[in-house]
Amino acid sequence: MGPLVTPERLREFFAPRSLAVVGASDTSGWAQFIAASSAATGFTGPLIPVHPRHATVFGRPAVRSLRDLAEPAELAFVMVPTQAVEDVIDDAAAAGVRNAVVLASGYREAGPEGYARQDRLVARAAAHGIVLLGPNCLGFINTHAAAGPFALSVPLPLLSGPVGIALQSGALATAVLAFARSRAIGVSTLVTMGNESMITTADVLDYLVEDEQTRVICLFLEEISQPDRFARAAGEAARAGKPIVALKTGSSPAGQVAALAHTGSVAGDDAMVDAALRQFGVIRVTSIEELLCTAGLLGYDRLPAGRRMGVLTASGGACGIIADRASAQDIVIPPFAAGTVAAIERHLPLFAAARNPLDVTGYVLANPRVSALTAIDHALDAAMDDPGLDFVLFCGVTIPDARPQDERLAGMIEERVRWLGERIASAPIPVIPMGSTCVDVSGYARDLLTTHHIYLLGGFELGVRALGHALRWLENRGTLTYPAPPRISRQAAVPGAAGSWPEAAARDLLAAGQVPLVPAELVNSAGEAVRAARRIGAPVVLKVCSAQITHKSDIGGVALGVHGDAQVEEAYQRVRAAGESVPGAIIDGVLLSPMRAGGVELLAGVTVDRTFGPVLAVGLGGVWVDLLGDTSLRLLPVTTDDVKAMLGELRGGPLLRGARGTRPADLDVLAQVIKNVADVAMSLDGSLRALEVNPLWVNGDRVEGLDVLVVTGPPVPNGAEA
Amino acid sequence: MGPLVTPERLREFFAPRSLAVVGASDTSGWAQFIAASSAATGFTGPLIPVHPRHATVFGRPAVRSLRDLAEPAELAFVMVPTQAVEDVIDDAAAAGVRNAVVLASGYREAGPEGYARQDRLVARAAAHGIVLLGPNCLGFINTHAAAGPFALSVPLPLLSGPVGIALQSGALATAVLAFARSRAIGVSTLVTMGNESMITTADVLDYLVEDEQTRVICLFLEEISQPDRFARAAGEAARAGKPIVALKTGSSPAGQVAALAHTGSVAGDDAMVDAALRQFGVIRVTSIEELLCTAGLLGYDRLPAGRRMGVLTASGGACGIIADRASAQDIVIPPFAAGTVAAIERHLPLFAAARNPLDVTGYVLANPRVSALTAIDHALDAAMDDPGLDFVLFCGVTIPDARPQDERLAGMIEERVRWLGERIASAPIPVIPMGSTCVDVSGYARDLLTTHHIYLLGGFELGVRALGHALRWLENRGTLTYPAPPRISRQAAVPGAAGSWPEAAARDLLAAGQVPLVPAELVNSAGEAVRAARRIGAPVVLKVCSAQITHKSDIGGVALGVHGDAQVEEAYQRVRAAGESVPGAIIDGVLLSPMRAGGVELLAGVTVDRTFGPVLAVGLGGVWVDLLGDTSLRLLPVTTDDVKAMLGELRGGPLLRGARGTRPADLDVLAQVIKNVADVAMSLDGSLRALEVNPLWVNGDRVEGLDVLVVTGPPVPNGAEA
Repeated sequence: MGPLVTPERLREFFAPRSLAVVGASDTSGWAQFIAASSAATGFTGPLIPVHPRHATVFGRPAVRSLRDLAEPAELAFVMVPTQAVEDVIDDAAAAGVRNAVVLASGYREAGPEGYARQDRLVARAAAHGIVLLGPNCLGFINTHAAAGPFALSVPLPLLSGPVGIALQSGALATAVLAFARSRAIGVSTLVTMGNESMITTADVLDYLVEDEQTRVICLFLEEISQPDRFARAAGEAARAGKPIVALKTGSSPAGQVAALAHTGSVAGDDAMVDAALRQFGVIRVTSIEELLCTAGLLGYDRLPAGRRMGVLTASGGACGIIADRASAQDIVIPPFAAGTVAAIERHLPLFAAARNPLDVTGYVLANPRVSALTAIDHALDAAMDDPGLDFVLFCGVTIPDARPQDERLAGMIEERVRWLGERIASAPIPVIPMGSTCVDVSGYARDLLTTHHIYLLGGFELGVRALGHALRWLENRGTLTYPAPPRISRQAAVPGAAGSWPEAAARDLLAAGQVPLVPAELVNSAGEAVRAARRIGAPVVLKVCSAQITHKSDIGGVALGVHGDAQVEEAYQRVRAAGESVPGAIIDGVLLSPMRAGGVELLAGVTVDRTFGPVLAVGLGGVWVDLLGDTSLRLLPVTTDDVKAMLGELRGGPLLRGARGTRPADLDVLAQVIKNVADVAMSLDGSLRALEVNPLWVNGDRVEGLDVLVVTGPPVPNGAEA
Repeated sequence: MGPLVTPERLREFFAPRSLAVVGASDTSGWAQFIAASSAATGFTGPLIPVHPRHATVFGRPAVRSLRDLAEPAELAFVMVPTQAVEDVIDDAAAAGVRNAVVLASGYREAGPEGYARQDRLVARAAAHGIVLLGPNCLGFINTHAAAGPFALSVPLPLLSGPVGIALQSGALATAVLAFARSRAIGVSTLVTMGNESMITTADVLDYLVEDEQTRVICLFLEEISQPDRFARAAGEAARAGKPIVALKTGSSPAGQVAALAHTGSVAGDDAMVDAALRQFGVIRVTSIEELLCTAGLLGYDRLPAGRRMGVLTASGGACGIIADRASAQDIVIPPFAAGTVAAIERHLPLFAAARNPLDVTGYVLANPRVSALTAIDHALDAAMDDPGLDFVLFCGVTIPDARPQDERLAGMIEERVRWLGERIASAPIPVIPMGSTCVDVSGYARDLLTTHHIYLLGGFELGVRALGHALRWLENRGTLTYPAPPRISRQAAVPGAAGSWPEAAARDLLAAGQVPLVPAELVNSAGEAVRAARRIGAPVVLKVCSAQITHKSDIGGVALGVHGDAQVEEAYQRVRAAGESVPGAIIDGVLLSPMRAGGVELLAGVTVDRTFGPVLAVGLGGVWVDLLGDTSLRLLPVTTDDVKAMLGELRGGPLLRGARGTRPADLDVLAQVIKNVADVAMSLDGSLRALEVNPLWVNGDRVEGLDVLVVTGPPVPNGAEA
């Protein structure tokens, strides 16, 4: 038997034509919500209450059990108490019901007992061939299939549209739908994930990527439990031209506690999540408003081919705010071409200047008009032919709250909106209409705008931020690698199972992997040290060598810049004694190396993330890491181009390019060495715990590891979750 | 004759009881707007159209000229064409009209001719004792005085409230009022500033600080033209407990162009603006939404005494988002006290945990209720007595779009809101209600909330950001100095008028001002250099000394770490030759100093900002300034406490506290030296152009200027604008 949750099966699951609501009663708020949600989506199929003691519910005839259904319902929404759920699943199987949403709580989120209960439920359903959404789940809405088995309030009207949504916190759905409505953003399918006992977020992501009605995908995430499948789906989404926008919580320690509490699973480290989402091409946002405004832009508008923006407004203040916000997003507002200026000037008051950003001035608003079109509309006609622009931001949409009683005025407004819709559809470059703030789009405006296929971006702040997201998404789309599947070592962080390698062994491993290291000799007497120092040449560095001592400097186990026999002898005794004073440390000897000066010191290390497996961190050493946390992260594997991109992301990166008098680093050589470090780490497979070259010294084309650390533990299965 | 624009006069100006609209006609959009705005504010006084050719306008009897008024109107709104304005002002004077708003454009914003026209207009008005708002101005609204001489559309209903607003871009007013309405934020007085020919933004700021109806002040700024008066007003506002929130544009080069174009005045450098606003205690925001949501919180809510927040929600997702946003604002979400946990648990479903942030779970929403109060309300009762909390964020306000037809349900909703209003008023700590997103507050909700004095913060994102602003404002209030008046040297940046001092003279100036400098000897031969080096002790530094050469390193005019007679001789010849190779440079000699090692290098400099006068910049040297732009700015004068605060703001600040093995700097000594640098700069008064000590070397309690630069020019009047 293959897996139950297949793409075909999900298409069936999310488009039921008949619905049984098990546990429905007249006093159940959940059932009331389901009836209302179904009505909101225009559900026309049978909606059959199932209750052992009620003959009718909401005036509809009820059956006592799923077994009493005349025909199997295509979906059962199960809202019975936790202890009754398993029996209902048996009833469903007997009745030929193949799909169920389970509302009850008390499963994975409720400790070990709940875990066991969830395992039993899944086993029972799987044995019957039944697919579950939930438990601890509020259901879903599919506007295009007109299905709404959804146990929360739906703000009306519910607008159908291109935005697919999956939420790991179902109770947020009403807030999400309310904001979507306020901005006239239409939803395709919205799914609340619950405990993901069978249908997972990755499954829904796959479904939405394939769903023809969905053009953009919104996610609310508390965890990414299947990063390999997530990465694969992200790659598919990019190939399908469907952006993914994610609001992922857990960026604060407190946030991580809340995520943990709610989902019963462990959230990953946020910097890693951030890096992974970027690598997967997922747009990360921080608010529900930003989530939906960004999705609205990506779902409705034609996207610009570049960053050169024309701006048309009726207020100098708007020009200033938009220019500032655009600058923060690296969006360019170039001067208009001469022809554009001339064409715009014809329709402006004398004192207004035809420049980009354009303020047609408020005079235009108050002047009596003979046609529906105003100066800003004529400016649009001119700007959209400007060869120096990639798109036009049009801040001239003004629609009253309600249809004016003056028919002539109403007709003029409606004619102008029609005209704008036509222009947007036919303009040579994208024309993106934007409001001043994110106030609600009124019912009148919504009807008018949707009729003419116009999406109005929600305000200068959210709108320009959404544009920045869209432009970055477009630019990055071709460059992303969607490392899939990342290697999963979920149990890698088990404490106590890890051990540091002796430095000599660690050096051998890295050297074999083509990581150049500073020359070093292991000595075990002061005399050997002196002879080695003579061979190496002054100044030298001495370090005590012991697998038990990872922070040698802290215990005085390192001597730097040592000159001459006497100093070498003294330094040998000193660092050896420092090592021997550490209880339990087995001393392998003292390592002598030449002292390196000038150049730049980097850090290149691989750690194993609980969620994402091995992760490469690259940073400049010293203050850059200590005080600024200036590192770049990538899931493995990486290419040398990835490594170069990582180096380019560092704030201290200019030092590698020769700022402040340093020799420019040979980035080809450096990137290859760092890639080799990553490859050596990968070669350790499931036993890898950490591998670090720190400092990695760079001076022009000379790259040398000055100190290395390798930590391994008992092998864990690779790709455990794949 | 004293100044026309006095506080008394402004109170009169902004509360007219009769209004003449000069130039009004039935086809004038402006006049229609004024009639509608007056109605929106509940204006009951006479509104008299004035037009030479119309007997009636909007059905009201018109007069031909202001001279024909039976009694003088308290305000004239002048909307005649530019060329007719001056005559209207004469008419006003003849009629005894003392106050006028001028709509016409073509003044300061229209080049030299416009400047002259504006000067003429002001002179004419002043001669008559008439006070002008504008020209190029859309008027104002005063909800408490029920006056609305305002020539833009007012979104209805217009809510009266505590937020005073001044806008340097009048055309933004409709967007501002629309967003305020959407969040049920009430306005006291809104003024559009126009060209500020007589009434300036600082005047309106003073007015709003004194206005009893205003509790918080919102500004949209394109320029700060009177920083001294602005600073004084900010100080008064702080003393009055009225926060100022400002959206100041011009943060981007493009934004600066837009501001310049619109206001006809020069915008200051944005980093300086940022520093000045912070120093004035002004909350700076980047969007209209943030401006008003922050003002709403400050205007309506009781403010917390600290950062410990209790969070009550009905969604785990909300907890996650709020926790992340709170963390970004350094707001703490501590565990509940045991008593709070016990009290909350009694009202929660078994599977829900009584922790902070609290998710009472969606179950509560769907369960049939016997009373209006739900679990989240009981949680509020418990949390507001928690001794470990400073305030409670209450995310449990759910009001439908319209009053339910079910009377019992409507009664329950209304009773609950009443209860909440009562709790907010009586709770021992502030209770701050917040919605999930910034969707519009519906009419039903607005009426209900305002009746019970409840302000609902607009969403997790804007709401928590507003809280962060409020907390910082409260914490900083006592520590700010409101340097007033800052010295103004508006013409200081005149090119060509400045000159560098010879290094010896610059050193003398600083030394006299108690700025310790590294010892130095000026020599003029290789022999003198060798003898000086012997006295100083190796290693030494040699620098060529010439007022014409400010960047000595760039031309090879510096030798570092020089040892021994031979090296000193060679270095002397080399740096001298480098200096002599610069065309036009007069060489004063070569300066020898001991080489300093270890420690940290800082930069301490004073520049003269066009708007704000002398400004102190403090930063760590090297990469911190070059790559990170890590500097702190303050208007002068400063105290040593100010300087310590500046050092604390630096990202590289930990280096001064001994991070990475450096000796901790003696901050008392260092702050005194930097203050002395600032005082020396101030002593140059209007002739100051720049004064810089860079590097300023710090090693423990040793602080020494290693290099100094003083640039002065012809004196300019000090406090020119004061």
